[in-house]
Amino acid sequence: MLVDRIVEDAILESIHRSRVNLLSEEAGFVDNGSSITLVIDPVDGSANAAFGVPLSCFAGALVEDGTAKEALTTWFDTGRAWHALAGVPTSFRTTGRTTLDGASVCIMRPKKGTQDAWLRIANRADRIRVLCTTCLETMLVAEGTVDAFIDPGSDTHRIMDLATALVTVPAAGGVLVDLHGRPFTFEPDLTHRWSGVAAATPQLAEELIATVLG
Amino acid sequence: MLVDRIVEDAILESIHRSRVNLLSEEAGFVDNGSSITLVIDPVDGSANAAFGVPLSCFAGALVEDGTAKEALTTWFDTGRAWHALAGVPTSFRTTGRTTLDGASVCIMRPKKGTQDAWLRIANRADRIRVLCTTCLETMLVAEGTVDAFIDPGSDTHRIMDLATALVTVPAAGGVLVDLHGRPFTFEPDLTHRWSGVAAATPQLAEELIATVLG
Repeated sequence: MLVDRIVEDAILESIHRSRVNLLSEEAGFVDNGSSITLVIDPVDGSANAAFGVPLSCFAGALVEDGTAKEALTTWFDTGRAWHALAGVPTSFRTTGRTTLDGASVCIMRPKKGTQDAWLRIANRADRIRVLCTTCLETMLVAEGTVDAFIDPGSDTHRIMDLATALVTVPAAGGVLVDLHGRPFTFEPDLTHRWSGVAAATPQLAEELIATVLG
Repeated sequence: MLVDRIVEDAILESIHRSRVNLLSEEAGFVDNGSSITLVIDPVDGSANAAFGVPLSCFAGALVEDGTAKEALTTWFDTGRAWHALAGVPTSFRTTGRTTLDGASVCIMRPKKGTQDAWLRIANRADRIRVLCTTCLETMLVAEGTVDAFIDPGSDTHRIMDLATALVTVPAAGGVLVDLHGRPFTFEPDLTHRWSGVAAATPQLAEELIATVLG
């Protein structure tokens, strides 16, 4: 989408000035020979942004030698932003909820093959929202607005959809894992896909995964 | 919720000064002997509001002798507002989409008995969102941000959930109907429930209903 390209072009300029690498949705991997790579989703929720639903954000993580060190997510529509350093506790915290019963869950829409799993989560959770913006929904988990976010098995996520959550959610007391336990890696080719699960606690993540896997 | 009561209390004061009746979620029917009744949802999306999801609004309709004449919906989080007079075209317009294929649809979460219908809509629509705020979602239909909003048969809606849409969506070129064709009425006892369907065009409403009814 045009909005993605506008933001990404601005970032590309900055990347070249700062001589770091970039891994991004449109540009792919831009190698400036650095040990540092900025992994970005220039506009997450770009369909929301394009149509006037105020749920879209910039998400960027700083990765050094394959490890995510720092992350910033900025909610365009409200000005709220979440900054985190890997392993350093943040001022905002997850809800601390440990059970799916009573939970407020953001979930990706059902797709072919994930309908039964989708309904199992929807039937158990107290509240369900489908907001169409993973980077923002995982930040809502980090700040304690909702208890969890889950892709119930569609393997939709690329690393830039999860890179900021990978730093921010654990720093806020929660967890970010893949539905099938696959490790998150920063590959230049962007062919890897995951089903991200962000939860307020490890117990809640486990229960979400067990419910999806049935 | 507390936020509902704060807004409703302020409106109650105004109602008594203006000597009109009120029909509202918490207060029920307040009879001031007027031919005019203000039908309000003080805070639609109150769970969103309480937890920091910026999707909540005030919705109020002016009903005279049983007919909705004027409506105002105000989105707390963005300041956007939609005003309409029954039968008078608004400056904002629906998308004009006539088919479910390719459509962007807001939908209520599935409940017991509506799961199959829910999935039939989700599988056909191009985009699905569950935003948990009927009054706001119907305004997104009116202004052309999404193509339709639907309760796929759970009969969740009371008249204050639909009163503003009843005026605003048709004035913007769309339709608001009940899934089963039941007429919308303003009863003081609030026991009536509907499954609201707001769509950019009558054709799209018909296709949504046919898809839900299977």
